[in-house]
Amino acid sequence: MIDLLLLGTGAMVPLPDRPLSSLIVRSGGSLALFDCGEGTQVQMRKFHWGFRRLDVICLTHLHADHVAGLPGLFHTVANAGRTEPMIIYGPSGAAAVVAGLRVIAAQLPYEIVVSELSDGDRFDFPNGLRGQVREADHHVTCLVYRIELDRAPAFDPRKAEALGIPRPQWSRLQRGEAVAVGDDMVRPVAVVGPPRKGLSFAFLTDSRANESLREFVNGVDLLVSEGTYALDDYEADPARHGHMTIRQACAQARAAGVDRLWLTHFSGRIDDPHRHQDDARTIFAATDIGEPGLSARLSFTNGYERLDRSG
Amino acid sequence: MIDLLLLGTGAMVPLPDRPLSSLIVRSGGSLALFDCGEGTQVQMRKFHWGFRRLDVICLTHLHADHVAGLPGLFHTVANAGRTEPMIIYGPSGAAAVVAGLRVIAAQLPYEIVVSELSDGDRFDFPNGLRGQVREADHHVTCLVYRIELDRAPAFDPRKAEALGIPRPQWSRLQRGEAVAVGDDMVRPVAVVGPPRKGLSFAFLTDSRANESLREFVNGVDLLVSEGTYALDDYEADPARHGHMTIRQACAQARAAGVDRLWLTHFSGRIDDPHRHQDDARTIFAATDIGEPGLSARLSFTNGYERLDRSG
Repeated sequence: MIDLLLLGTGAMVPLPDRPLSSLIVRSGGSLALFDCGEGTQVQMRKFHWGFRRLDVICLTHLHADHVAGLPGLFHTVANAGRTEPMIIYGPSGAAAVVAGLRVIAAQLPYEIVVSELSDGDRFDFPNGLRGQVREADHHVTCLVYRIELDRAPAFDPRKAEALGIPRPQWSRLQRGEAVAVGDDMVRPVAVVGPPRKGLSFAFLTDSRANESLREFVNGVDLLVSEGTYALDDYEADPARHGHMTIRQACAQARAAGVDRLWLTHFSGRIDDPHRHQDDARTIFAATDIGEPGLSARLSFTNGYERLDRSG
Repeated sequence: MIDLLLLGTGAMVPLPDRPLSSLIVRSGGSLALFDCGEGTQVQMRKFHWGFRRLDVICLTHLHADHVAGLPGLFHTVANAGRTEPMIIYGPSGAAAVVAGLRVIAAQLPYEIVVSELSDGDRFDFPNGLRGQVREADHHVTCLVYRIELDRAPAFDPRKAEALGIPRPQWSRLQRGEAVAVGDDMVRPVAVVGPPRKGLSFAFLTDSRANESLREFVNGVDLLVSEGTYALDDYEADPARHGHMTIRQACAQARAAGVDRLWLTHFSGRIDDPHRHQDDARTIFAATDIGEPGLSARLSFTNGYERLDRSG
């Protein structure tokens, strides 16, 4: 099960009613944050998912509007009682940026470990989520994150009993190991079903649309994607800005066969992103205009479900 | 004339309804900011005093809740079109902190000049305000700012005409220079009145109360002071926290003979600072519980006047 909550949807500059783009994700009691612009900790406080269990921060890139909230958040996480290490993933240069920002957060009761990733790298979260990054198409090095939670194949207890496998051995078969029963070796295929689809989401900002990214986010349950400019704004040449229009983001989501699209990272030039919802849905019907508090649960049993604002 | 606007009143951690303590001051079209915690730029945007004319930032000390908003603000000031240098005053160490935070704001279209001050230092603002600092009584080196705007003595045009002084020379006399009229030298005292009281305010956070500070802020038109803890909260030993209770702040303002007191920098332990207004006013009647948007004008003609929230 993965819960996701959009904390903000702004680009470049935090506005009074539009905090900077950030996503928080909860699974197995552990929190992971995707980007941390100025004010992110205020939004985290507003939605009450807590601070102490923030195990991982994933940074897409090192522009101020995606990282300036880090030092303040470090202090607030410390005040919440954290003592376990926190890991920060980000592109090349992330360690130097975190070190620079720690000029005002030098003394913390927990360790901060920065791990710099590059195109194709895979990594594991402490709660069992698995991550992979692909290089975005932006002005500077920027990472798109795809996160997966595997689902174990179905285990058939009647078959296991029929084969006389002692119950204490069942979990080994579920994990894919063979077990000895008398003189025979029983292999997992005898008692578990075929592979089952897990859960997945992707966080894609800041970037132009391109074929490599469409392939990378293919089939996720939820794509959280930038749609920086309005449908007709910059339509002539959005590429020179290193961003997508809402139209391009929707077309990419449709082409990638994702189940659901949340749009975020709206330019201050867009007065009210919701005004573009109907147009966006003509391109890709399963589109939501992001706003702070938009939240959903991904579960093996029900797939994508909207949660209300109280999370 | 000096306009003052309280942007936030929080201490240590920004809360959804209580941004971090910060004050913006406008005089002669020029803006000066006192402290810049995370989210200060959002509050500046909310009250529409602009960004481009931000000539000076005065930092009391280098704790994150007073400076973490700097790099984001630097970008926003750049986006507003500033090209003139910006000066930042702060305690020893300010240059290193600004340099560290500029890891995410390295390229700006204007120069940032950091000037480190120590106890007793005086400095001038580009708009004619004059500043002085005194060392506060806190855990770390921290500066209290007292700002003054001088008022020229009254000039008597009838006396100047009676003495036959040509009009183009009047301004020299007003500036305090003697001028030649025929064979005689006319000195300013012949045409100007006695010295007149100017305008003044002080920004005092974070600190314990003490005699040196009472003397330093003596008689200002407006004292903006921390009152970190509630009347009875920490009353037994607030000193160990390097802060004042609301009660101590009011007593200090009364003893210092200030005209008006604004309280700010409230601990998150205080649910609603306004609940303490009546108690505060029993100690010092001219006390306002600070809140974002509290604003006033200091003018030679009317002294202190509240402005409404639209500024």
